[in-house]
Amino acid sequence: MIRRQTEVVEKIRQQAQAVHTRITRREKPQMKLPIRSLSNVKYRPQPGYFQLRGKSKVRTLTVSTVKTFAQTLKMLAMSKDLIHTQRHSTKREAYYQAYNWGEAAFSAQEESDTVMDDVEAMLGVNREQLRFRADEHGGEVAGELIVIDRDRKTRKRLEIDCTRFGSGAYSVPTVVEELEFRTAARFILAVETKGMFERLVEEDFYDTHHCILVSMGGVPSRACRRFIRRLADEKRLSVYVFTDGDPYGYFNIYRTLKVGSGNAAHLNEFFCVPQARFLGVTPDDIVHYKLPTHPLKEVDRKRALDAMKNDPFIRHHKEWQEAMNKLLRMGVRVEQQALAKHGLEFVARTYLPAKLKHTEAFLP
Amino acid sequence: MIRRQTEVVEKIRQQAQAVHTRITRREKPQMKLPIRSLSNVKYRPQPGYFQLRGKSKVRTLTVSTVKTFAQTLKMLAMSKDLIHTQRHSTKREAYYQAYNWGEAAFSAQEESDTVMDDVEAMLGVNREQLRFRADEHGGEVAGELIVIDRDRKTRKRLEIDCTRFGSGAYSVPTVVEELEFRTAARFILAVETKGMFERLVEEDFYDTHHCILVSMGGVPSRACRRFIRRLADEKRLSVYVFTDGDPYGYFNIYRTLKVGSGNAAHLNEFFCVPQARFLGVTPDDIVHYKLPTHPLKEVDRKRALDAMKNDPFIRHHKEWQEAMNKLLRMGVRVEQQALAKHGLEFVARTYLPAKLKHTEAFLP
Repeated sequence: MIRRQTEVVEKIRQQAQAVHTRITRREKPQMKLPIRSLSNVKYRPQPGYFQLRGKSKVRTLTVSTVKTFAQTLKMLAMSKDLIHTQRHSTKREAYYQAYNWGEAAFSAQEESDTVMDDVEAMLGVNREQLRFRADEHGGEVAGELIVIDRDRKTRKRLEIDCTRFGSGAYSVPTVVEELEFRTAARFILAVETKGMFERLVEEDFYDTHHCILVSMGGVPSRACRRFIRRLADEKRLSVYVFTDGDPYGYFNIYRTLKVGSGNAAHLNEFFCVPQARFLGVTPDDIVHYKLPTHPLKEVDRKRALDAMKNDPFIRHHKEWQEAMNKLLRMGVRVEQQALAKHGLEFVARTYLPAKLKHTEAFLP
Repeated sequence: MIRRQTEVVEKIRQQAQAVHTRITRREKPQMKLPIRSLSNVKYRPQPGYFQLRGKSKVRTLTVSTVKTFAQTLKMLAMSKDLIHTQRHSTKREAYYQAYNWGEAAFSAQEESDTVMDDVEAMLGVNREQLRFRADEHGGEVAGELIVIDRDRKTRKRLEIDCTRFGSGAYSVPTVVEELEFRTAARFILAVETKGMFERLVEEDFYDTHHCILVSMGGVPSRACRRFIRRLADEKRLSVYVFTDGDPYGYFNIYRTLKVGSGNAAHLNEFFCVPQARFLGVTPDDIVHYKLPTHPLKEVDRKRALDAMKNDPFIRHHKEWQEAMNKLLRMGVRVEQQALAKHGLEFVARTYLPAKLKHTEAFLP
């Protein structure tokens, strides 16, 4: 759910009001926070992401919590200021701004990050809506999409046409909450590597197939996931994912994009892409296209076995268990660029078009 | 030096011709390659980058070199094909395309990368001119710059206005050889982190100061360095660099951008930015602006001592030795976002403008 900035301010005001009310009644002020840990997480196919089970803790003001309590309130105030000045602050900048909080200053950035996570979870909004951002790339985009942003000074609409970048691309900002979109594309293709992204740009793939290409650059950042999610939701687009054929591609990249991650379960609502489907490279592709492979490393094997045992998403989907078992039996992994064995243009002219004719066969 | 693609093809042809001639004369074919190692490197203040001392080795066709010899010739042929089809190949794709070379196939990508490095050094051109590219980000750009690229299909000129990205940015492609530029900017400001880059965009910095902002995202990639170099050369722009105040920012980021790196000395000619000057954060800034710091880590200390002992660039510049000694005596490092202690707008409204009034005081 996207909330307007006025709604976020209202939530902050309510929290502060509740604390204030208890103080004036001479009661100890309290804050209620959901517990953020894997033990408090479940996977629900509908709506399609990891969710908190709803356990929460109450933080009451005492001698031992007084510093964190003060920091949480100051962090809420900082967010309110940011909304009013229309600025964003990186997590690092927030930490340094808090240098002036006297005894409530943080002794390390990990501390301020934790308080920020608490505030997110407490208000049920994401950090970006509080106008905090991470220092991370947001992915790159090329294809049949017009992104609508605003000029910071004039507030005029800016239309960014993602077909007009030549060999370059549109770099997604770390905060995408206020972007709007216009597109007639048929689907979004999210690609693991920049190398493959540039291959598809060079082969005029988005032109021929009327799609939007997104380079995730490995495990997609929050900004990249949020961008794909908002775009897919608002324009009702399918999302297909194209990674290497290995446990890292399947679990760390695809699964994170689709259902989110365990340790940020209070945020998956915003950052998962439930409509994502896995295009490839699948274990079957290795056989079908006679692709060159590498032996599975011990770390791959561990990752796979661990996921099949503990990951609620994989445990829910038999198809993924079968694919994973097949890869383990074959004992190999495959890179998406291995398709170049059949020529550079093979991926765009043969592999992807054949796959896109049977999207119903994509892994869930 | 940028060479036209026809020149590159001519160089390839000459190499092949020389091999062919010796064969028809019943002599053993040979190839001459510069030695690529630190021992064959010197720093020259003019033209301003690490250079090879000129030692080279001759590779003669023998039983033990026959495979590498064949691979080198095949790699030259692959490059020639890429130029003719107007494609690029990533290093990984090149490795997989070579799967079909029979006995000359590579057993690992490291092997094909080495042969590619040999070919670069042998021809005295860079990999991008041979139409090979790495799988890496190229940095992000916002500011008073129009990048001129071409539509791949129609070959029509595309003008990409880097003031019109709102909160986003232009993502630099991995190959920048054919880009052209139009700008009235006064200078390029290359920034270490995306967080600081977005800060400056949000503060309208490039508007107020008529400059081009580049986010390097840590140690600048080849594409990012080449982009800054070409832009600075062609438009005669100054380049100022803004990193964290620590040995990593000084040596790994700034020094690599300015003079290149030791193990790719045959390429520094293309990838260094000799006009770069170091804006900050300097050890003096820590004192002057009372910035929050962190203790120097052991790895920082080692990096600094090693650079002062072995790095020809640092040994050449007394100013850098003094700055480094000062930081070591203070025993601290500082992040560029520490300036946020004085408010988010401080960096754009106070710190950078004060610095830019005395560019003559920038570190070399």
